Amino acid sequence: MSQPDEQSRYYNELAGSSLHRLSGLSDGIFAVAMTLLVLALAVPTIQEVKNDSDLAQALLNLVPSLVTYFMSFLTLGIFWVGQQTQLSQLERSNRDYTWINLAFLLFVTIVPFSTSLLANHYQLRLALIEYWLNILVLGALILAAAEYAARARLFNQANQATIIGAVRRRVYIAQSLYLLATLLCVIDTRLSIGLIVAIQLNYAIAPRIPLLHRL
Amino acid sequence: MSQPDEQSRYYNELAGSSLHRLSGLSDGIFAVAMTLLVLALAVPTIQEVKNDSDLAQALLNLVPSLVTYFMSFLTLGIFWVGQQTQLSQLERSNRDYTWINLAFLLFVTIVPFSTSLLANHYQLRLALIEYWLNILVLGALILAAAEYAARARLFNQANQATIIGAVRRRVYIAQSLYLLATLLCVIDTRLSIGLIVAIQLNYAIAPRIPLLHRL
Amino acid sequence: MSQPDEQSRYYNELAGSSLHRLSGLSDGIFAVAMTLLVLALAVPTIQEVKNDSDLAQALLNLVPSLVTYFMSFLTLGIFWVGQQTQLSQLERSNRDYTWINLAFLLFVTIVPFSTSLLANHYQLRLALIEYWLNILVLGALILAAAEYAARARLFNQANQATIIGAVRRRVYIAQSLYLLATLLCVIDTRLSIGLIVAIQLNYAIAPRIPLLHRL
Amino acid sequence: MSQPDEQSRYYNELAGSSLHRLSGLSDGIFAVAMTLLVLALAVPTIQEVKNDSDLAQALLNLVPSLVTYFMSFLTLGIFWVGQQTQLSQLERSNRDYTWINLAFLLFVTIVPFSTSLLANHYQLRLALIEYWLNILVLGALILAAAEYAARARLFNQANQATIIGAVRRRVYIAQSLYLLATLLCVIDTRLSIGLIVAIQLNYAIAPRIPLLHRL
Repeated sequence: MSQPDEQSRYYNELAGSSLHRLSGLSDGIFAVAMTLLVLALAVPTIQEVKNDSDLAQALLNLVPSLVTYFMSFLTLGIFWVGQQTQLSQLERSNRDYTWINLAFLLFVTIVPFSTSLLANHYQLRLALIEYWLNILVLGALILAAAEYAARARLFNQANQATIIGAVRRRVYIAQSLYLLATLLCVIDTRLSIGLIVAIQLNYAIAPRIPLLHRL
Repeated sequence: MSQPDEQSRYYNELAGSSLHRLSGLSDGIFAVAMTLLVLALAVPTIQEVKNDSDLAQALLNLVPSLVTYFMSFLTLGIFWVGQQTQLSQLERSNRDYTWINLAFLLFVTIVPFSTSLLANHYQLRLALIEYWLNILVLGALILAAAEYAARARLFNQANQATIIGAVRRRVYIAQSLYLLATLLCVIDTRLSIGLIVAIQLNYAIAPRIPLLHRL
Repeated sequence: MSQPDEQSRYYNELAGSSLHRLSGLSDGIFAVAMTLLVLALAVPTIQEVKNDSDLAQALLNLVPSLVTYFMSFLTLGIFWVGQQTQLSQLERSNRDYTWINLAFLLFVTIVPFSTSLLANHYQLRLALIEYWLNILVLGALILAAAEYAARARLFNQANQATIIGAVRRRVYIAQSLYLLATLLCVIDTRLSIGLIVAIQLNYAIAPRIPLLHRL
Repeated sequence: MSQPDEQSRYYNELAGSSLHRLSGLSDGIFAVAMTLLVLALAVPTIQEVKNDSDLAQALLNLVPSLVTYFMSFLTLGIFWVGQQTQLSQLERSNRDYTWINLAFLLFVTIVPFSTSLLANHYQLRLALIEYWLNILVLGALILAAAEYAARARLFNQANQATIIGAVRRRVYIAQSLYLLATLLCVIDTRLSIGLIVAIQLNYAIAPRIPLLHRL
């Protein structure tokens, strides 16, 4: 085997193996995406607002934007907790695992776009479906990362079976519920949005509620 | 108890337990929010500014924006120091504590919006009240996080009584002062803004001033 | 030798020697650059979109922007993995190495500009050439950093020959391929863009494909 | 002494004492500020650019913006290296040191504003003076932080005299040179900008040049 071949193999073994840097990049991307969401909240201008009642009206008009803002913060929070939990169970990383996570982070950076789209066009089914596709791909990629990590034996071996089982179960159930909520857009897109927020609040809060904590 | 149930319990124990990641996300969100504030300072355009005296006038017109900018940087600085101090006293985290902090960070990301709103409409009481509500919720959530951490025994047990006592005292006194300042908007909103800045400077600088350091 | 001289020498030895801080700044800059790319995706406004088929058309019009978005995320991902791999092999840093990396990060921050330029003018050769120059300088600087680190003996000495050999080989081959792709703009700029994306996907995915993994 | 008094003293001792968090926030703010600079580079629109020669002209028009962009990246890089070097020599932090650094970071977040102002109005003396004031305050605050750290014995005591001597010398010489460059605006603001960039390049590169390395 030639020297360059060995160099390549060695380089590929080293590449992307820092869990610390992957955590740092992920925290940064989630932090920027979560904060950029606020740019979708258009601040009422001096031209359109002359007094307190104008401003009250202008803030009322922001309610759809605020709802999608809140929903997207929940979306990002849920996937951040999910990715953090997965990374904390790894004993090491490698180049392929890093690239699956970069693909996941690509769709994290698209969340502010999907959010603005839905805030502007919340009554259109296509805007809701685009938002749902964003959540679907995020779920698929976090599951793909876990499945790959299990195959490549990156997890702490003692906990691997438990972790991969829990991740599969959570992703399948959550994604089924999101699909159901999205299908309700044939009735009204606002019904879909309300149900997605309810599902997300369940994931954020539910472990404290006995009947729901098994989801 | 079924296998999936055990997986869920185990997963919930692991989820959100990394203090390091929570610090990383928090530093990122505070950093972006603090830097995004600058976007509220509209740079005078070439059309409106032809010479140095035009520019001097344009910069003078930015004074209300600069004051709210400074106030919001102080707001974010105070809450960043507060959260950092709290996290540094924890021995571990868990999923619920992480979600209380995510709720806190949601309202951190709203500070640039509240700041732009107040900079554009500083003479309107509703803009001031919206800003005060933002500070109020931040204070309530940082206290809620400390109370939860005490109940869930996340703090170093030796210091817990001292810490929770100090956090309660600081939040109650500071929030009473902010409320008082906000009520002064019945006279003039600029009076309220001036007093809020004075209270914040006290928290940033006061420990060096004997008479004030007990606040 | 005078006292100030010694102070200067001592200060210069200390300056920029924290690998941890350089990683932190790099993760932050890559994270912001990757997320700012999304601002190049103009959200269709309420004025231009009245129903689902308007929105479908508006999203179709975004395809060139989406392609350059995807390409730039790959560009940044590849250079992030490259820099991370290099930093992970260093035993220490110094002021000069830090400044070479700051120059590298300067061109990372320009990627969102080059991306918007290409998204807006993807049919113009000059926009493509500007994008290619951005990639060229990034490659040149990551190689310059590795060459400097080798000369200054910053690498773990046991692996130095292997690492510097692999970095040279990768940069020379990748940059030759990018140059080739860019030259194809004499036929059609879209051909160039397609080939650049293919080369980048190769670097992200190829190690799993036997015939390509030697690149 | 009362119980609340003890709580306050104890809380003030803990508050802001995490060097790790201060580094994290600083890296984040520098990263966002450095990347936001790119927003000052207006991407030529489709309306004004129809072909390659239009685009060449549009890019030429961006040269003043590019020069101020480059200058501001250097400014931020120099102060980032300076703060990093100072923090790396600390054995511990405290609340006052943290607040001096937060004041320093406030003026870091203003750099993108000063940059846009100068890029738009580079021929106006007031825009240059505002930019210089930004650099002046950054220098004053980094020196104030070092002086405070020396008085409060936060530095590693073995190196303290050397460090504080080097910091004073660097800040005084650099700020004298910046003042001199700024005064040249009575002749031409472009002369000032050119000299500031030359001084900054000296700080980034000079240690390798024998005649200049003592600055």
